[in-house]
Amino acid sequence: MKNSGISIIDPWGSTSVESYERLFEEFGIQSIGGLVEKLPNVPFFIRRGLIFGHRDFDKIVEAINKKQSFAVMSGIKPTGPLHVGAVLTLREIILFQKLGATAFYCIADIEAYEDNGIPLEESEKTALDNLVDALTLGLDPSRAYIYRQSKENDVKDLAFIFARSVTLSTMEAIYGARHIGLYMSALVQAGDILLPQLKRFGGPKPTVVPVGVDQDPHIRLCRDLANKFKEKMGFIPPSATYHVLIRGLDGSSKMSKRNPMSYFTLTEAVESVEHKLKNAFTGGRPTAKEQRVLGGEPEKCPIFDLYKFFFVEDDAKLMDIYWRCKKGEILCGEDKAFAVEAASSFIKEHQHRRKLFIDKARDLLGLS
Amino acid sequence: MKNSGISIIDPWGSTSVESYERLFEEFGIQSIGGLVEKLPNVPFFIRRGLIFGHRDFDKIVEAINKKQSFAVMSGIKPTGPLHVGAVLTLREIILFQKLGATAFYCIADIEAYEDNGIPLEESEKTALDNLVDALTLGLDPSRAYIYRQSKENDVKDLAFIFARSVTLSTMEAIYGARHIGLYMSALVQAGDILLPQLKRFGGPKPTVVPVGVDQDPHIRLCRDLANKFKEKMGFIPPSATYHVLIRGLDGSSKMSKRNPMSYFTLTEAVESVEHKLKNAFTGGRPTAKEQRVLGGEPEKCPIFDLYKFFFVEDDAKLMDIYWRCKKGEILCGEDKAFAVEAASSFIKEHQHRRKLFIDKARDLLGLS
Repeated sequence: MKNSGISIIDPWGSTSVESYERLFEEFGIQSIGGLVEKLPNVPFFIRRGLIFGHRDFDKIVEAINKKQSFAVMSGIKPTGPLHVGAVLTLREIILFQKLGATAFYCIADIEAYEDNGIPLEESEKTALDNLVDALTLGLDPSRAYIYRQSKENDVKDLAFIFARSVTLSTMEAIYGARHIGLYMSALVQAGDILLPQLKRFGGPKPTVVPVGVDQDPHIRLCRDLANKFKEKMGFIPPSATYHVLIRGLDGSSKMSKRNPMSYFTLTEAVESVEHKLKNAFTGGRPTAKEQRVLGGEPEKCPIFDLYKFFFVEDDAKLMDIYWRCKKGEILCGEDKAFAVEAASSFIKEHQHRRKLFIDKARDLLGLS
Repeated sequence: MKNSGISIIDPWGSTSVESYERLFEEFGIQSIGGLVEKLPNVPFFIRRGLIFGHRDFDKIVEAINKKQSFAVMSGIKPTGPLHVGAVLTLREIILFQKLGATAFYCIADIEAYEDNGIPLEESEKTALDNLVDALTLGLDPSRAYIYRQSKENDVKDLAFIFARSVTLSTMEAIYGARHIGLYMSALVQAGDILLPQLKRFGGPKPTVVPVGVDQDPHIRLCRDLANKFKEKMGFIPPSATYHVLIRGLDGSSKMSKRNPMSYFTLTEAVESVEHKLKNAFTGGRPTAKEQRVLGGEPEKCPIFDLYKFFFVEDDAKLMDIYWRCKKGEILCGEDKAFAVEAASSFIKEHQHRRKLFIDKARDLLGLS
């Protein structure tokens, strides 16, 4: 793990990124610049800067524009219900599917075991639950290869193939001194990312991995491995897009399963979501009086993040909220009532629609 | 790797064991004592002290005497033709088969890749070749489960399960700082050793692993893992027997694929075997005159090792050679002619009989 004292990037820990710009210098992530705007039908959350950086995304833009075959690869670690931050990655996958990609969606049950100690037998139920959410959100299974790591021999075999080329010091530099299972899990993940390029899926192709920036170490490791095995297996180093980390509702730097008050899940009771939102950290001032004078700070506010990336699709409406907050015209209490309303209706609708996808999800995971 | 300056035990390096007794103190290997003599029909190479140490072999003796189910587990790393030293392990497997064990014989093609860089596609041919030798030497396939690591998902999955419980420092202590593939390979080997105890093979049972003492680190790691997963998976820690390391023909401490003059293979041209034997290091004196006066030193002689463990089954005949050498009655030249004769006839007979087992071996490996 590279730690300059400023940016700490560790996919298994908590990440604090004080300045995304620094990532460009320190880790060689490129600014997304105008790249996403070249895409057709860019959805609101992309327009609003969800994706701030990339590696080799040019290849994907080219494939989209030339209507060439490409893949989008991502997945979920089945350690619990899907949280609202994870919806972002799914929306990105769905976006790339609509732009022509075949999606590879991995249930990272090996990682859930190695990192979190959840036995495969237990994560199976969670995997089903997560997949129902993904399908409900719009993942199109007819254009996707959906699998559990533990059942996918090719990714495990790729891990064994790659392992010979990875020194201990590389692993320690990237991940620190961890148990062997975590290193194996990182190699399995490299297998996941390169799976779409195997002959059985049509061979080498550009592949984009939409991730939070905390996942960059995996991307770098995988790109190194793709280069090392380029001659033998024909891999094209995978591309990546990096989205901002959505702040925790409790004011923490990232929504994290480790802090239950930092996020809510898609299957959570509406009352619980309301409770978390009402107790959320905001960009408000210490007193109502101060806030009326100074205005709020929406750019520091996790509730505003929810509007920006999830609930308020209409740009004019978002700007209205922004300015009314800045001018001190609305206080946090009033605003939270609106947030609760928006979140509740989203969650209720989602939970209602989930029923439609349970059989399909069960089917896709080979459960009966 | 524990290195006291006296005994170095490293399965992937060269091992020099100056005193087997020290192993009992340093590593907790138990002296075989009278344990093997309790077994029925002990063959000559066992009677002559091939096996000097063990861990938990009492369990196996008990299973044999009570006619309970038990397994013998071993294998071969398919990096080249089977060398004469490897025959010893096979003879031990065959012995335990005759004593009632089901044999688990593993073609360690993952290890051949991780340790020696031999791709699976390439080791397949060698695996076939090695298996033909094993069957020719008497391995009974009707009482054996024979498999390649790369094709056996259960051993790979066991490696993933075990990995979470193995710290980096454990691996470094046992194997030194190696690439990740080697650590994964060690965990796969633990999977091999515990495979016989899975439900699909009838569940937990005593299992003996006959090894050269250089393989003890694997045994210790595997016994630790068996204990860690005892509650969850019911494992009985595997037993092991340790055989002496046969000296290299060139005077090196161990027959090793790294020194072609230190060994011969079962499929080698007879002329080449003759050449190696004629140039072998012996327990002879610098001059013929000295040897006639002082006598030879058969206990230092790799040629005498061949007689003791391979070619001279008759005890009276072996003692005759020993004493004639000690008394200076035979010189090394004369003796080597006898060795060449014995080795040639063994090799010729073996190579002739190999033809009978090629189809069966192909069949067992699923090759056509």
